[in-house]
Amino acid sequence: MLIKEIRVTPVAFRDPPLLNAAGVHEPWALRTIVEVVTDEGLTGLGETYGDLGHLEKVRATARELLGLDVHSTNEIYARVSASVGEAVTDLHGLTGVATREKSVDRVFSPFEVACLDIRGKAIGRPVSDLLGGSIRSAVPYSAYLFYKWAGHPGEPADRFGAALDPAGLVEQARLLIGEYGFQSIKLKGGVFPPEQEIEATLALRDAFPNHPLRLDPNAMWSPETSIEVGRALSGVLEYLEDPTGDIGPMAEVAAEVPMPLATNMCVVTFEHLPPAIRLGAIGVLLCDHHYWGGLVRSTQLARLCETFGIELSMHSNSHLGISLAAMTHLASTIPNLAHSCDTHTPWQDGQDVVAPGALRFVDGAVPVPTGPGLGIELDRDALAVMHEQYLKCGVTARDDTSYMRRFDPSFSAARPRW
Amino acid sequence: MLIKEIRVTPVAFRDPPLLNAAGVHEPWALRTIVEVVTDEGLTGLGETYGDLGHLEKVRATARELLGLDVHSTNEIYARVSASVGEAVTDLHGLTGVATREKSVDRVFSPFEVACLDIRGKAIGRPVSDLLGGSIRSAVPYSAYLFYKWAGHPGEPADRFGAALDPAGLVEQARLLIGEYGFQSIKLKGGVFPPEQEIEATLALRDAFPNHPLRLDPNAMWSPETSIEVGRALSGVLEYLEDPTGDIGPMAEVAAEVPMPLATNMCVVTFEHLPPAIRLGAIGVLLCDHHYWGGLVRSTQLARLCETFGIELSMHSNSHLGISLAAMTHLASTIPNLAHSCDTHTPWQDGQDVVAPGALRFVDGAVPVPTGPGLGIELDRDALAVMHEQYLKCGVTARDDTSYMRRFDPSFSAARPRW
Ligand SMILES: [Mg+2]
Ligand SMILES: [Mg+2]
Repeated sequence: MLIKEIRVTPVAFRDPPLLNAAGVHEPWALRTIVEVVTDEGLTGLGETYGDLGHLEKVRATARELLGLDVHSTNEIYARVSASVGEAVTDLHGLTGVATREKSVDRVFSPFEVACLDIRGKAIGRPVSDLLGGSIRSAVPYSAYLFYKWAGHPGEPADRFGAALDPAGLVEQARLLIGEYGFQSIKLKGGVFPPEQEIEATLALRDAFPNHPLRLDPNAMWSPETSIEVGRALSGVLEYLEDPTGDIGPMAEVAAEVPMPLATNMCVVTFEHLPPAIRLGAIGVLLCDHHYWGGLVRSTQLARLCETFGIELSMHSNSHLGISLAAMTHLASTIPNLAHSCDTHTPWQDGQDVVAPGALRFVDGAVPVPTGPGLGIELDRDALAVMHEQYLKCGVTARDDTSYMRRFDPSFSAARPRW
Repeated sequence: MLIKEIRVTPVAFRDPPLLNAAGVHEPWALRTIVEVVTDEGLTGLGETYGDLGHLEKVRATARELLGLDVHSTNEIYARVSASVGEAVTDLHGLTGVATREKSVDRVFSPFEVACLDIRGKAIGRPVSDLLGGSIRSAVPYSAYLFYKWAGHPGEPADRFGAALDPAGLVEQARLLIGEYGFQSIKLKGGVFPPEQEIEATLALRDAFPNHPLRLDPNAMWSPETSIEVGRALSGVLEYLEDPTGDIGPMAEVAAEVPMPLATNMCVVTFEHLPPAIRLGAIGVLLCDHHYWGGLVRSTQLARLCETFGIELSMHSNSHLGISLAAMTHLASTIPNLAHSCDTHTPWQDGQDVVAPGALRFVDGAVPVPTGPGLGIELDRDALAVMHEQYLKCGVTARDDTSYMRRFDPSFSAARPRW
């Protein structure tokens, strides 16, 4: 089962003006679709970031993998590592520090997922069966709430409308929960002063008394502010996500607040785990196979976290259905994934490169596809349209900060802000 | 690929009088052979301990796994866990403390290996391909030296002869290295006073100046003695294995000796890793899929060790070819397995349940089998003979101490002795 061809296709899709600590989502979000084809004609799918620096690494690496067997994971990883070399590709700053190891893991991931897709197809089994087997038939996701503008400046309001205060967020939650059935809620914070985000969180608690809640200000707070907010939200949050930056300050905060701290910023690669564990910085790790080196490494990460009493949740960036399928297979096999996963799926509002039918939400959870491999099929027409959009949209790397500055020249993404 | 039948067969084979901290090997060593058969007629092999308490757990558990799919690793583990319940089965004391987790992992292991064998056969790929792919085509093993009597009391000398002093050990090393080509040497100590074992180690260093050396007294020394021996062997050992017992004392010793400490006694299950890492007790972990819950969990263990800068080596008890095949597949896929693995294979002197030809030593290394699954076949005639030997030999659990006391009633295996 040798790799004969790899197609790498950047795509763009419409994205609403979601506000975050770095600025605001641009009108177009980017992803890269990877198709691996074997000598026997099987095709596997992977999905990764679309930022140009990363895309170029993926393209250059793809050439180095031709002729390798889809089972030779260690060899593929070594080739990726050699191809990436010492280059550290940075993306937007919302998934933590860029390191060489993370750069390699990020390039490796879509190839690994595609190879697992092929291996599953070859034996007629779902990818989850290659990861230890599903222990849950559906994977619960959270309603991922964002402060947002009604529409992109100069465009009409989108169907989600504005959410710039507690009432707006509660309304957004009702919409997402009504459409998807989510059983828990995550609020992306770091946008307004902490008092306002506390108020919004409490409003969500009142409106949804039985939904576990989380708040993620993307390290926009000082340790002192983090401790204040943590104490103010005692008994309200299942976890507080990245209130402040870096492992040391997170450990300071962890010692003083009543709820576990979670992260997808200060622990984003294996080398961050020893200091984070030594200092007791985190109680929950948001795994993400896109930068933790694929699905198998994520299961290894899960075992490590279980060993050290760290719970798992799952992080998401804007993504399409290939990623959702991979996330769902992975999450279905991890016993200690104790929280609903994050997903941006609702914000893509039906746009996808995956043919309809394979992925759906039932009561906020995605049933694990049971077909061979990832259990999904590429919609080639949709891929062509989205690639065309990529070529025309003019965006080549996500840059929430510059986009925000077009409307608010004084905006700064410097951390901490409060 | 559902499990239709599981055959569990205890076997016994001749074992020479190898001396160790617990006493001396009895004339018969025990193992349990597990055959898993699917509804499609594929058979997978596993091998585990033969001690009666463990054998009974394996037999009882086998009944609980019928009807499960060979891919459903998580479900199989859960069934094993439920079957083992709260029972902690202890074996001989040379692989560390018995815990519930270790008892479950030990029962799970042969079933997991057999399922991987089946999965490999089903797709025509070696088991190593299910573990990330071989990164080495052959796995180096060490010459595993033992102090030994010339033969069992009342029997003629065996062909290995006596080894009760430095000259005897050097001669034994020449024999094993001559026959197998081993490139490194391990001495099982804890038998004679430390001065004598230091002397033997230095004699081996003189006779084999280019062979990495290790010494394993199975925790027979106090921390003070361990520090003295460690200092006396500065520059001589690649690692010192379990000089003393328990994580705390090992950490004390580790801080005072020049070489890394290795263990297969104080860290034998995932729950031991956090304290061992926190205290800096070990530099090398001897993994062993027989009690670390099989091959996939061992790869997860390897990732954890890599994350914390712990090197890997591999532990062995008396075993047959199914275990050697599994050990070789596993070791071939682990990048950070930085030392030759241990094996008792030479002491079995050709006795095996595996049909000849698939496993061989070349320059001290076993070429990784490239056939489907484990790449070995059961020799049913040999299995029948060894099972007959099991029924007749009268041994039902390894007990080196009682056997030693038949010849030296004053013998005590209490630790530390020195
Ligand atoms: Mg986050
Ligand atoms: Mg040992």
